[in-house]
Order: sequence, then C-alpha cells, then structure tokens
Amino acid sequence: MRKFQVVVIGDAMADKEEYEFAEKLGRYLGKKGYTVITGGRSGIMEAVNKGAFEAGGITVGIIPGADFLQANSWCSVVIPTDLGHARNSITALSADVIISIGGKAGTLTELGFGWIFDKPIISVSRFGGWSADLSGKRIDDRRPDNIISVDSLEALKEELEKIVNMSKLN
Amino acid sequence: MRKFQVVVIGDAMADKEEYEFAEKLGRYLGKKGYTVITGGRSGIMEAVNKGAFEAGGITVGIIPGADFLQANSWCSVVIPTDLGHARNSITALSADVIISIGGKAGTLTELGFGWIFDKPIISVSRFGGWSADLSGKRIDDRRPDNIISVDSLEALKEELEKIVNMSKLN
Amino acid sequence: MRKFQVVVIGDAMADKEEYEFAEKLGRYLGKKGYTVITGGRSGIMEAVNKGAFEAGGITVGIIPGADFLQANSWCSVVIPTDLGHARNSITALSADVIISIGGKAGTLTELGFGWIFDKPIISVSRFGGWSADLSGKRIDDRRPDNIISVDSLEALKEELEKIVNMSKLN
Amino acid sequence: MRKFQVVVIGDAMADKEEYEFAEKLGRYLGKKGYTVITGGRSGIMEAVNKGAFEAGGITVGIIPGADFLQANSWCSVVIPTDLGHARNSITALSADVIISIGGKAGTLTELGFGWIFDKPIISVSRFGGWSADLSGKRIDDRRPDNIISVDSLEALKEELEKIVNMSKLN
Repeated sequence: MRKFQVVVIGDAMADKEEYEFAEKLGRYLGKKGYTVITGGRSGIMEAVNKGAFEAGGITVGIIPGADFLQANSWCSVVIPTDLGHARNSITALSADVIISIGGKAGTLTELGFGWIFDKPIISVSRFGGWSADLSGKRIDDRRPDNIISVDSLEALKEELEKIVNMSKLN
Repeated sequence: MRKFQVVVIGDAMADKEEYEFAEKLGRYLGKKGYTVITGGRSGIMEAVNKGAFEAGGITVGIIPGADFLQANSWCSVVIPTDLGHARNSITALSADVIISIGGKAGTLTELGFGWIFDKPIISVSRFGGWSADLSGKRIDDRRPDNIISVDSLEALKEELEKIVNMSKLN
Repeated sequence: MRKFQVVVIGDAMADKEEYEFAEKLGRYLGKKGYTVITGGRSGIMEAVNKGAFEAGGITVGIIPGADFLQANSWCSVVIPTDLGHARNSITALSADVIISIGGKAGTLTELGFGWIFDKPIISVSRFGGWSADLSGKRIDDRRPDNIISVDSLEALKEELEKIVNMSKLN
Repeated sequence: MRKFQVVVIGDAMADKEEYEFAEKLGRYLGKKGYTVITGGRSGIMEAVNKGAFEAGGITVGIIPGADFLQANSWCSVVIPTDLGHARNSITALSADVIISIGGKAGTLTELGFGWIFDKPIISVSRFGGWSADLSGKRIDDRRPDNIISVDSLEALKEELEKIVNMSKLN
C-alpha cells in the first residue's frame, strides 16, 4: 500500500527565508512518513526534498529532462520524463495534496492542473508569487472549495493533517 | 514552408456572443491564410475552427483523447494526443501567436505555458475569465512584455497583424 | 470534415533509392488529397513531406523538440511537442493508416504503438529495417490481422486504396 | 542520493510460472535495496512490485491513467501520468537497467525506448514474447552491445550485479 503523497510546488529560485521554510516543511513531511514529490530541481523543490530526505522520508523528483543529473541531490527516486514543461501535469496528478510556495508561470500551470484534477491545494501566502495571488481563491467555478490559504508552517501543518485524516491512506 | 500558425484558446463552453466573436475571428484567420490551431473541442475552439474552415483555411485540432471523434467537425486535421490535459503544453508550443478568449483553469495552464515558451499572447478582455484577468499583465518577471489586451475584433486584428509582420513567415 | 490522414514512418537517414521511393509516395498521397503526417525530420520523413507538399497536399510534421526549426522544410503545419521520443505515440495515434519504410528503434516503437492503437499498417519490405522484419507478421496476438507487406509502390497504392475505401472519410 | 533504479517490463497477464519468477526477482531486488519501477499494473508488473514490496524495498508504479486506483496494491509510490501508452517512454527513462520478461507490443515499445535511451537491457529468454525474440540481439546499429540474454534467475542476478558494479550508484 502506498503512503500519502505530498506534492510541493514552487520556484526553482528561493531566497534564504523561503528555502528554510521549505526545508522545515520537508523535514516535517519526512518525519510523518509521507512521500514527498517535487519537480526535482533547485530552490523550493530542492529545499523540501532535502528536509524530507534527511528526515528519512521517500523523496521523488519528477524532472523535465531525460538525464538523472538534472535532479537535485535529495531525491531518493528520480523519474526523468523528457516531457519538458508538460511534466507539470504529472507532478500535479501524483498528489494526494498539493502545497504551493511562491512561484512563477510554471507553478501557475501546476496550480491550474491541480485544480482541474480536483486535488486539495494548500497555498502559502507569505512569499508572494502565484501562491499568494491565488491563496484563498478559486481558479474557476468547477469546484465549490477554495485554494486553502496559510501564512505559517503551523497553519500549514494543521490544514495538511485535516486532509490526511480525510484520506483513505491515513 | 509552413504558414503562420495562430493558436486560439478558450472555454469549451461559450455563450452566443462569445461563439459569434470566435467564429468571426476564425473567418478572418482563414481568409488571411493562417493555419488555425485549437484544442479541437467545443465552445470557443469549435467556433474558431468553424469560421476558419468555412473560409477555406487549414484548421487543426490537438485533442486530449485518443479518438478522432472527440474533435469538433471543423478540424481539417486532427491530432489525437491521448495526453489528457498535458496536451495543453503542445497546443501552446504550436503557436506563432496565441489568442485567448474567456477561459477557465485549462486556458490558464495554456496561458502559463505560452508565457514560458515566449509566445506573443493577445488576450480578449471583454468576455471575462482568465483572458480578462490577465490581459495587459505579465505572468511573471521572465519577460519584459505584457499579455496584449484587446477588447474588440478590430483591435485584435490590428495587434495580430503587427505580430505577423514581425514574423519571418510573413 | 477532416481528410484521410496517412502517417508515414521510417528512418531519419535514407539512401537515394529510399528517398526517391518516399518522395514518389508523398507525391501520390498529396495528389490524392490525403493529409500526410510524419515525425517532421529528415530522411524518409522529409522525402514524403516534400513529395506531398509539392503536389499541393497538407503535410504535418509532429516533431520531438520545442523549436519549429527542427522540422524539415516541407511541412505545411508543424506541431512541436517537446516530448522527445514519447511523441512517437502521438504520431501513431494521428493515423488512419500507417505506412512504414525501413526503420530503426524509433520506427519500431511507432509500429508497436500503431499495433496497440489498432491502426492498419502497410509495411514496405524492400528497404530492410524493422519494416522488412515485421512485414506480413503480427506483433502480438491482440489482433487477428497482419502487418500488410508490400514490395513496390504499385502494391502499396493498391493496399492503401482498399483501406481508404473502407474508411468513412472516403 | 538516489538508489539504483531497476525497471522491470513485461506482460499485464502472467501465468503461474512467470508470476513466481517475477515475484522471486522482486524479492531479490527489494532485499538488495534497489528501487523497483514498473508500469504499475497487473501480471509481471504486479509480481515484481509484490516481491520487492514484501522484502521492504521501494516500489514505484508509473501508470498510464490519472487514477491512483489503476495501480496494483504493491506500489509504495504511484505516479499517475494520464499519458496512455506514451508513459512507456518515461518507464524506460527511469531505468539504470531494464529487465524484460515475456511481453507483447507494449513491452516492445519499452524495449525500443530503452535501446534508444542507451539503457542496459537484460532479457529473459525462457517465457517467450518479445523478450525471447530480442534476447541476445541488437535492435539497430546505433549501439555496439546486445540485449543481454539470460534464461534463469541466477544468470539474471549475475548480469545485473555486473551492471550495478559499473554504476556510480553502487
């Protein structure tokens, strides 16, 4: 039986504060025994993979290219898709929940796909980017719920555990 | 040598006013001899395919499923991808220019991809949706330009011809 | 209504005899008014696109990369997929019939996909490669029919027209 | 740092002898600490996932659909691609080594992709299918090596460990 799969999306560039936030989040996810999935690259993706990996978790990087070396060093499993940005669809599909931090156009496409695929989305409002712009909002009218807005790691954990508890993988 | 490729994105559902706008647009594009590419389904996609097809243009539908029958009746060429929503990346890549009308989460992912792939984007502001929300704006800071905002078919044609004139396919 | 779509697969490298065969085939397909679809690159793909284009047909190149310039000069429409070799699945899906000439591992994957997608396949036996190895054979037991084996352009045309005549697009 | 990734390909249907062979193989791979990746479905894929999972290994299923439920019960991680058969390209790309057992047209496309992506391939000759047909052979002339042919689990382990030992992940 698979473990609960947390997909974390966000920028390939992250400043110190964002990186530390994502690394702490990763550490939490790893300790809880969730599988942590990212786009496998630098910035937010690397930070969350690193935290989870060091906490003993399974960390997966779903990368755009064909070469394993494109992945950051903290992926215990690397899936090279060679799909370019179309891999963002697969990243979103792999989620029991999506957590979004900061983010530019690539993150926006993942938020759009996550919304279409009916995935619960928790968005961190404090680091700007599309995560802040869309936090607390709906992307369109196909779903009755909103993107869940959180502004701290504590609030994020709380919202996450609600979703885990509703899951059959709990 | 290929013709100039215009990708039109927008809702699979369209009210009468939107449908007529898109059909007129399609007729214009077909008369000009541009290749018209859409996601091949209903609503805006069908309207623009229909207009262009009836004007004698080449119309391509890049559909999410494996079955030709998923395409609307006004595609002279159908490309069944069986990629689901990941086909939105291919739709965006196929553009010399993207024209966006209305639109929900799927359109949003296409706008995000178009932005990443450095495609010129003309967005119609008058029918709401993500096209209106993003018209005149930038999706992130990787590009110096904005999504071009137009509110009428005349303005759209004018902006389009500027882009065609700068193209080597002119 | 779309036209009958003929997908031609084969090597990116072709000697003079193969090239001329493919170009003649393309000319025939273009004259008949079929849409000719290839992987958009050199060799067999280029030859068939060239023949069809010069005969006034619609020619489509579904290319592995993101850049229009990867396509040969004889595609009237270019679909850049940026899927790498996974685009071979889309090439096969786009067929009302697949014609196979020569071919290496890439052609083999297209033959496999075409077989899975239940496409009629006509294979030219005279230029070696996987087309020769599999001509007249079945890839597995899911289908009752065989890959149709032909050794001349005349035989190819005859088998092709049988398939066109059974098609609703006739 | 990721673990050595073994991709096992083969039929979604397997008789008792094949299933037991694949399950024993999975158990060996799991005990060695390799990550075991399959297409996530029934037959050979399920058997190898089961053996590895029960031995405590990480098992990944890269499935063609969008729904986690399409995966067999022995995947510790499920990657839903919604790419249909195009996911065979990703399965092959995810390999440090490919092991092939039996197999029909889908397996053939994975063998073709693995060959193109320059992956070492070990093919089991004793259960028929494309694995037997291609064992000891080359798919085309782009590589100097052959698909490695083995007819027993012992021979398979021996060939596998040679490849592991040459890998930087050893």
